[in-house]
Amino acid sequence: MDKVKIGVVAPAARLEPATAERVTTLATAAFAGRAEVVFHPQCFLSAGHFAGDDNARAGAFLEFANDPGFTHVWFARGGYGSGRIVPSVLDGLTAAAKNKTYLGYSDGGFLLAAFYKKGFRVAHAPIPHDIRRIGGEAAVTRALAWMINGTREALEPSIDHVHPVVAFNLTILSMLVGTPWMPDLRGHVVMIEEVSEHLYAIDRLLAHVTSSDEIRLVAGLRLGRTSDVPDNDPPFGQTPEEIVRHWCGVSGIPFLGLADIGHDSGNKVVPFGR
Amino acid sequence: MDKVKIGVVAPAARLEPATAERVTTLATAAFAGRAEVVFHPQCFLSAGHFAGDDNARAGAFLEFANDPGFTHVWFARGGYGSGRIVPSVLDGLTAAAKNKTYLGYSDGGFLLAAFYKKGFRVAHAPIPHDIRRIGGEAAVTRALAWMINGTREALEPSIDHVHPVVAFNLTILSMLVGTPWMPDLRGHVVMIEEVSEHLYAIDRLLAHVTSSDEIRLVAGLRLGRTSDVPDNDPPFGQTPEEIVRHWCGVSGIPFLGLADIGHDSGNKVVPFGR
Repeated sequence: MDKVKIGVVAPAARLEPATAERVTTLATAAFAGRAEVVFHPQCFLSAGHFAGDDNARAGAFLEFANDPGFTHVWFARGGYGSGRIVPSVLDGLTAAAKNKTYLGYSDGGFLLAAFYKKGFRVAHAPIPHDIRRIGGEAAVTRALAWMINGTREALEPSIDHVHPVVAFNLTILSMLVGTPWMPDLRGHVVMIEEVSEHLYAIDRLLAHVTSSDEIRLVAGLRLGRTSDVPDNDPPFGQTPEEIVRHWCGVSGIPFLGLADIGHDSGNKVVPFGR
Repeated sequence: MDKVKIGVVAPAARLEPATAERVTTLATAAFAGRAEVVFHPQCFLSAGHFAGDDNARAGAFLEFANDPGFTHVWFARGGYGSGRIVPSVLDGLTAAAKNKTYLGYSDGGFLLAAFYKKGFRVAHAPIPHDIRRIGGEAAVTRALAWMINGTREALEPSIDHVHPVVAFNLTILSMLVGTPWMPDLRGHVVMIEEVSEHLYAIDRLLAHVTSSDEIRLVAGLRLGRTSDVPDNDPPFGQTPEEIVRHWCGVSGIPFLGLADIGHDSGNKVVPFGR
């Protein structure tokens, strides 16, 4: 088997150099000699909210995506910013970009969606910045184990390899509805998760997503974790699961149960498709 | 001229009875004998986040919308909840519902959009709950003056009666993209405003809205006020106007300047259409 060579770029927020060092140390200790993790210096740039301006982020992304030496492109961190570079990244891809796997989640869903639509291999997966979480080394190790060994235990356990699957942060999925980057999700199991949103906003996002005629063609929804939910004033009166069940009922989309994904160190890998 | 009879319902959050009394007192003092304002008792119900459950809110809405005695239906308050009742309200409308004008803004935009799509008369306008703002009596008086006297000074000043116009809270416009409730906005001047959203979220909402092929057919965007913007960490690096100009540039949508609307007592009336 060819050696795994993982290129890390930051399409959204910047990474601290010390975080990159921790990930490199962990990868060396756990998978010595079997993989190389290369952090693009763009990861450490800073321009307002972002890890460098749009040109810098798109340029670094394309440099690694178009480099035939990399087997994987791993998104350093979420936050916000991936959506801003989708058009220029899509415009700059060459043939070598298709022969690798792209991994990220949260804000990175903008790129995962657009790349999946193009027929590229993409996966919702823990990212380097997750090492800063409590228990975060397990999350990063899980992503690396899947990239390096194809470890099945890294996968979200409901994946049956029969139904195609995708996983998205709910806000990002909502921001994709009605745009050219939304892949055809007919027949897919769609896993959603959310962080730092009020319950009323989660309800509103589900109202949006489940009202889309395209989304109504999915095989069903699975709910991942909703974490750091700010207090609703007044109390919303429904749990996240009750909210999802409500909108599944209204829209006729089957509710399939929970999903083992979220903004936490337990977050599992979901390769898009079958 | 027939007497103006305004029915107030609460499709989203509940109104305090004292707020209704203040509006009634103001309407009587300023427009004595020329208008009647009737608050549906549903305005004062409470069910979790909402002014009564979905059935109660949709039922009260339809009761007033289908009553030929009302010339206007005025949304008591925004918050969140209008989007939940759009399908059942649309299903229950009778012929009498078309012969009146519907007024609201913010969360009420879900209903304004769906009703405008049906060819009903709707307007973005101050609402009863606005009387609680500093200077709020002026806002409520402005909406009443437009309903009762057709006062032109109440209108958003850029309206030229040549280009059709609409006005939306940016989040609500985003939640309409790709749904069956989105009206055809080809050739429209689209005014947007926002409240209590981070700059990164405003940028993300504009990424979404301006990436829609349907929205790219509008005549242009105008930016109303963005108020109560929480601190961005790190600083976002662009002002709201710069953000709108950025996305107008990316999408080819003309940026037409500012709009005199927002979550404040200066908020002007924008009747949808010409």
